[in-house]
Amino acid sequence: MALRTLLIANRGEIAVRIIRAARELGIRTVQAHSAADADSLAVQLADAAVEIGPPPASKSYLDIGAILSAAEASGADAIHPGYGFLAENPAFAAAIEQAGLTFVGPTAETIRMMGDKVAAREAAARAGVPTVPGSQGRLDSVEAAREVLEQTGYPVLIKAAAGGGGRGIRIAHDHHEFERLFHQAGAEAKAAFGDGGLYVEKVIHRARHVEVQVLGDGERVVHCFERECSLQRRRQKVWEEAPSVSLAPGVRERLCAAAVRLAEAVNYRGAGTVEFLYDDESGEFYFIEMNTRIQVEHPVTEFVTGLDLIAEMLRIAGGAPLSASQEQIALAGHAIEVRINAEDPASDFMPFPGLVSDLRIPGGPGVRFDSLLYPGYAIPPFYDSLLGKLIVWAEDRPRALARLGRALAELRVEGVKTTAPLHSALAADEEVKAARFHTRWLEGWLEHNAAKLKTTEEGAG
Amino acid sequence: MALRTLLIANRGEIAVRIIRAARELGIRTVQAHSAADADSLAVQLADAAVEIGPPPASKSYLDIGAILSAAEASGADAIHPGYGFLAENPAFAAAIEQAGLTFVGPTAETIRMMGDKVAAREAAARAGVPTVPGSQGRLDSVEAAREVLEQTGYPVLIKAAAGGGGRGIRIAHDHHEFERLFHQAGAEAKAAFGDGGLYVEKVIHRARHVEVQVLGDGERVVHCFERECSLQRRRQKVWEEAPSVSLAPGVRERLCAAAVRLAEAVNYRGAGTVEFLYDDESGEFYFIEMNTRIQVEHPVTEFVTGLDLIAEMLRIAGGAPLSASQEQIALAGHAIEVRINAEDPASDFMPFPGLVSDLRIPGGPGVRFDSLLYPGYAIPPFYDSLLGKLIVWAEDRPRALARLGRALAELRVEGVKTTAPLHSALAADEEVKAARFHTRWLEGWLEHNAAKLKTTEEGAG
Repeated sequence: MALRTLLIANRGEIAVRIIRAARELGIRTVQAHSAADADSLAVQLADAAVEIGPPPASKSYLDIGAILSAAEASGADAIHPGYGFLAENPAFAAAIEQAGLTFVGPTAETIRMMGDKVAAREAAARAGVPTVPGSQGRLDSVEAAREVLEQTGYPVLIKAAAGGGGRGIRIAHDHHEFERLFHQAGAEAKAAFGDGGLYVEKVIHRARHVEVQVLGDGERVVHCFERECSLQRRRQKVWEEAPSVSLAPGVRERLCAAAVRLAEAVNYRGAGTVEFLYDDESGEFYFIEMNTRIQVEHPVTEFVTGLDLIAEMLRIAGGAPLSASQEQIALAGHAIEVRINAEDPASDFMPFPGLVSDLRIPGGPGVRFDSLLYPGYAIPPFYDSLLGKLIVWAEDRPRALARLGRALAELRVEGVKTTAPLHSALAADEEVKAARFHTRWLEGWLEHNAAKLKTTEEGAG
Repeated sequence: MALRTLLIANRGEIAVRIIRAARELGIRTVQAHSAADADSLAVQLADAAVEIGPPPASKSYLDIGAILSAAEASGADAIHPGYGFLAENPAFAAAIEQAGLTFVGPTAETIRMMGDKVAAREAAARAGVPTVPGSQGRLDSVEAAREVLEQTGYPVLIKAAAGGGGRGIRIAHDHHEFERLFHQAGAEAKAAFGDGGLYVEKVIHRARHVEVQVLGDGERVVHCFERECSLQRRRQKVWEEAPSVSLAPGVRERLCAAAVRLAEAVNYRGAGTVEFLYDDESGEFYFIEMNTRIQVEHPVTEFVTGLDLIAEMLRIAGGAPLSASQEQIALAGHAIEVRINAEDPASDFMPFPGLVSDLRIPGGPGVRFDSLLYPGYAIPPFYDSLLGKLIVWAEDRPRALARLGRALAELRVEGVKTTAPLHSALAADEEVKAARFHTRWLEGWLEHNAAKLKTTEEGAG
């Protein structure tokens, strides 16, 4: 049954994005918000708003009981979790279903399995999807890792089974370091995630991050091609593109087919992303993890396929089948997204909340700015620093890069520092233009290009 | 030779649009502006700005000498005329070429021929393009019209040869009225255009306005499919779509081929539009006129084809051939543009300049807002009332209409009245949803729906 009233259990640009999609489908929107977000753009745009508690997030956006109460009070029949916060919390999905409401996403069981990165690796292997060489199952001890370490060699990654998204990762360069970090990582994972389980993965040198967007309705799964997110800082994506700039001939088909196989194996429902490391020298790709939610970088896929992924999520949650067959989903042109964070790239990306005294939003053909900003908005200090995403599309990558540079020059966010100068420098960089990068490339670039990140009074702030 | 420095001899949203395209191509931009436009967004975004005189336009944007001086002073090697003002003035194009600069548009000769609507009708007939039944050549007297009037019957349109764009048109319902209006129209055309030449056209009842976008490089011509602009008020377009919602099977191919034939016949260079009336009962179409410039509604074509029409104009003016073959230009999805004017639709569209105290620009997927606005901008009273164009794209027309309604609800222009409430009402209208309209439909609708146009304090202003 099509959704009627949707509670948005998130904030920021993704809340705004969800409100837009819901309104176009005729779904009433209720924005669940913290006291710190009463003035947010999402609250202004939603049909109704319910306060769920004070900052920090643990007392509001992470409070399952408060969110369920807000849904009940507002007459919502469905909840969209966005990304982050409770989006991949199986207890949240289960509680929503138990309350007789619709969780916009996969089943709690799917979330639980993919959230356990060891179980996800096993599921991928069963579905015939190549995984990064490493341990099978959880490692109970340093001794248990010995055989695996002989195969992987050093350096090796130690990862938390309950981690994901770049969190809970250590790198060990020799056995001595492995022993020390293994114990440390286990204790920290236990503290951070309530689960001390660990596994190890071989380091794939100079790999690219390539991920496949999938959509499922519980019966059928389609892919919406891939994104490349190799430009990362501290394992966090800062710049994403679609399609990938580096796939060898034939790899796209195999990669997307592998993602579909994994999603089909769990009768996937909703939007999800299967993430891979891709070695562009060998042409091999390796499953890392599956994210069972919408991703920050979904707009680049929307630009090159014409799909509205949030609308698809809402339709599927309302019981509709996928609206497009695999044959109807085609790639056109090239899209790039850059994350505009309230951080000063010239000062080691120090967070920079504050009052946005003036705002100039870039426009024109092929430009989209998904943002939480409006002129006069006071950015609260309690949440992540993502202010918005500047996404551009053009017929090909060189034109998309030119458009990105143009749009960044138009963007003006007065009153705070942002990462826009980083992206302006990257858009003009010869290595970026040639797409010669890997997941550690940006960190090296940042060490050598600090001077390019000095903001001027005239520049995009 | 690719352009290096471009003078923009226009203002408002089209000046901003041209600056964006030029910057992406690495072309330096110089904004020619009146004293009243010193604070304009175009001046802020351009690389440089030159004042060319005071308002009104006759002393600045229509002053050929002042514009040529500005081009010389700023080192421009090319001039883009935008639309309106001097865009279809053959003397302007000729003066630019004589000064050794590049006019971004067709030759002065092409502009002159298509500007003479009688000569254009003759050119269309020679190219085998159907024209509206009526007189051939100019009519010197009422007597000379007698034979034609027997064929067309009454009512009949009396048009100025030097008119176009809906200007200089009279409708006569009987011979007595014809006689009176013919003399009146001749005198007014002489006064307004310096050319009293007239011609007559049969009235095509309940016709739709369908126009074909063409691009030529002086040797080859392609079409970029059609737009439908049937929603008009006082013969001025207020809402445009691509593709047309009303073409019978097979008509698109014939219509576009006819437009290409006419453009090929004059070795057309640049972007142009061939306008037709389309009778969706008979499936017949009739040439009205050709506009030898970019049009206000070009973004709907950009959305459904992926082309950047302004960039194409600049490349062609720089000597490049067309960047796409006809086979490479394909239609995808549906786009709608609505014109946001500073007019109060609840008070007979009275112009409403003033200070824009707050501005909320719609965003999200498939939304583009080409505008001259920024928060705090004081709209000058000297120029036309177009503030911007809200353009939406979606996979199909119903979704585009839903997106348009959503985007209009987001738009907020505080401090002035705008035509946004008209468009919100139209986007929700059942006849509009069913695409049951013609070029006089909106005027009837406005008579019966005045109540829907009352703005509220909460509504988009």
